[in-house]
Amino acid sequence: MAVVQLKDVEDARKRIQGFAHKTPALTSSTLDGMVSKQLGVNAHLIFKCENFQKVGAFKFRGATNSIKSLLAEYEGTGKKPVVITHSSGNHAQALALAAREQGVTCHVIMPNNAPSVKKAAVQGYGGIVTECEPTLQAREDTTAQVTQQLIAQDSNTVVEFISPYNDVRVIAGQGTLALEVLEQAEELGKPLDVLITPVGGGGMLSGCAVATKGSKPAIRVIGAEPKVNPKTIADGLLTSLGSNTFPLILEHVDAIHTASEEEIIRATKLVYERMKIVIEPSSAVPLAVALLFSLEFAEWVKSVPRTGGLNIGIVFSGGNADIIKLSESFAQLETTTE
Amino acid sequence: MAVVQLKDVEDARKRIQGFAHKTPALTSSTLDGMVSKQLGVNAHLIFKCENFQKVGAFKFRGATNSIKSLLAEYEGTGKKPVVITHSSGNHAQALALAAREQGVTCHVIMPNNAPSVKKAAVQGYGGIVTECEPTLQAREDTTAQVTQQLIAQDSNTVVEFISPYNDVRVIAGQGTLALEVLEQAEELGKPLDVLITPVGGGGMLSGCAVATKGSKPAIRVIGAEPKVNPKTIADGLLTSLGSNTFPLILEHVDAIHTASEEEIIRATKLVYERMKIVIEPSSAVPLAVALLFSLEFAEWVKSVPRTGGLNIGIVFSGGNADIIKLSESFAQLETTTE
Repeated sequence: MAVVQLKDVEDARKRIQGFAHKTPALTSSTLDGMVSKQLGVNAHLIFKCENFQKVGAFKFRGATNSIKSLLAEYEGTGKKPVVITHSSGNHAQALALAAREQGVTCHVIMPNNAPSVKKAAVQGYGGIVTECEPTLQAREDTTAQVTQQLIAQDSNTVVEFISPYNDVRVIAGQGTLALEVLEQAEELGKPLDVLITPVGGGGMLSGCAVATKGSKPAIRVIGAEPKVNPKTIADGLLTSLGSNTFPLILEHVDAIHTASEEEIIRATKLVYERMKIVIEPSSAVPLAVALLFSLEFAEWVKSVPRTGGLNIGIVFSGGNADIIKLSESFAQLETTTE
Repeated sequence: MAVVQLKDVEDARKRIQGFAHKTPALTSSTLDGMVSKQLGVNAHLIFKCENFQKVGAFKFRGATNSIKSLLAEYEGTGKKPVVITHSSGNHAQALALAAREQGVTCHVIMPNNAPSVKKAAVQGYGGIVTECEPTLQAREDTTAQVTQQLIAQDSNTVVEFISPYNDVRVIAGQGTLALEVLEQAEELGKPLDVLITPVGGGGMLSGCAVATKGSKPAIRVIGAEPKVNPKTIADGLLTSLGSNTFPLILEHVDAIHTASEEEIIRATKLVYERMKIVIEPSSAVPLAVALLFSLEFAEWVKSVPRTGGLNIGIVFSGGNADIIKLSESFAQLETTTE
């Protein structure tokens, strides 16, 4: 039996309600037109905007579900749960804020070469940062040390490590965004035929796949990945699949398509120019892969006879973009295509 | 009697319905917190997001109202209205698209040194571009020549010049956004105490002031203007007040406050980072002026005794930002403040 099932995602949704935002599902007639022309079908895109989520990324869902699950587990035992993670990205900030909202202490182990702005962001949400040497060994040693110290200080403390993507509570939490967008697409009169999400460590993709296939098995679930790993601009995706996410992806995901760096940057720029919203480049991979430039996707669209239109859910995973760095990529794009 | 009144704005609203978007009114608890701390009151900001309007700017409202008014005026006369304007900015694109949607031909006179991307944008919306030397005289001569040619070709043609901001139909059209945000703020349980818009040529400010004072006279209406004109980054505001807008502003606007270049850039950056939406720098002047950095505004807030909170409407006028140019300003900001 799979480690995460539809019921887990539904329970997560109840747990995070009132804490995580129900983010909007946006549409764009300009992008619909571009994609329809490209694919030769009447395509409608439904964009699930996790860039508007708290902390600017879907990660807040999984973080909140983990912490609320943990609190429920130890309720009435006299034990005091504390969370710890190692991350220098969106997960660390999300966990820090989710922990603060639930009155839980959060420790983050971060390499000493991480940008100071990332350290400050975690601290701004109340997280306690411990730096370590930028090696895998140092990271694990430091995590163990901090854990031991916390227990030595107070024997009632339970220190729980929360993985950015391989934790089943995190996976279930991320899946809640799929339940929302399935409903939102129906409310718009455009029930999804396809849902495309970034891959990364697979936490979101596997959670969304479980939720989607569990409730609407006919919907095709696609993971979108940069072609050139690990030197991609989509640095939110610089991770590998985990032991829990990989089997879920094998079971539930229909295809993984890739996009080149230039395609990712072009898709990002389109979103800024046409939709007027800020997304990080990792968020643009589904749009790049599946809608504008992927031959594999176009082939699948042609292979399925359809009378009506094609409704495509696209997950914008986050909005924590470095505008200065991004605009350098935009400028390069203009140089190379002119 | 004023040239534009509440009734004109209400009529405009009916005319543009189904053509212009009813744009969303967004909120941001982070920015509420910053402003509340700054002003020492419980402030709530309601952002009217015309960056999500068609063509990426509020200008589409006035353009549509002008053209639909014109069609109504000549209905049944056998005359065929054609519109003409000179602009290389948002108004030209808005007029071109509004004209195309109503089946009207649109001519745009543009200086021959305007960026080719702006010419292409107008043409993309079906506008017919005629270039002229970049002088005021050449612009007016060319407008007259094109007008004469059109009439010579077909004596049933009526050529109507539509000013970007001084046309009463344009002013009434822009005012519709104020009617919408007044209602949206009430729906959010936060009826406005203040409404702040950019100034520019005054088309939007005067239309919004007429609409606001006509329906809720107690709401304070403030215009926001860059301190350093005309070398401002907020290049959407590089115009002067018109003969129709100036008297309306004198009659209905309570104050004009200014912001420095650095304050405008800081406000723009805050919107990108915290709200994850794309706005052009002109759009950030109300936020810069009135919410974070204006002493005059802070003094007014203190001068009025209030028991409840302060609900501030902020108009984001457009989203047609040059991300590459903007990020250079962001980078400079980081250098100067470090």
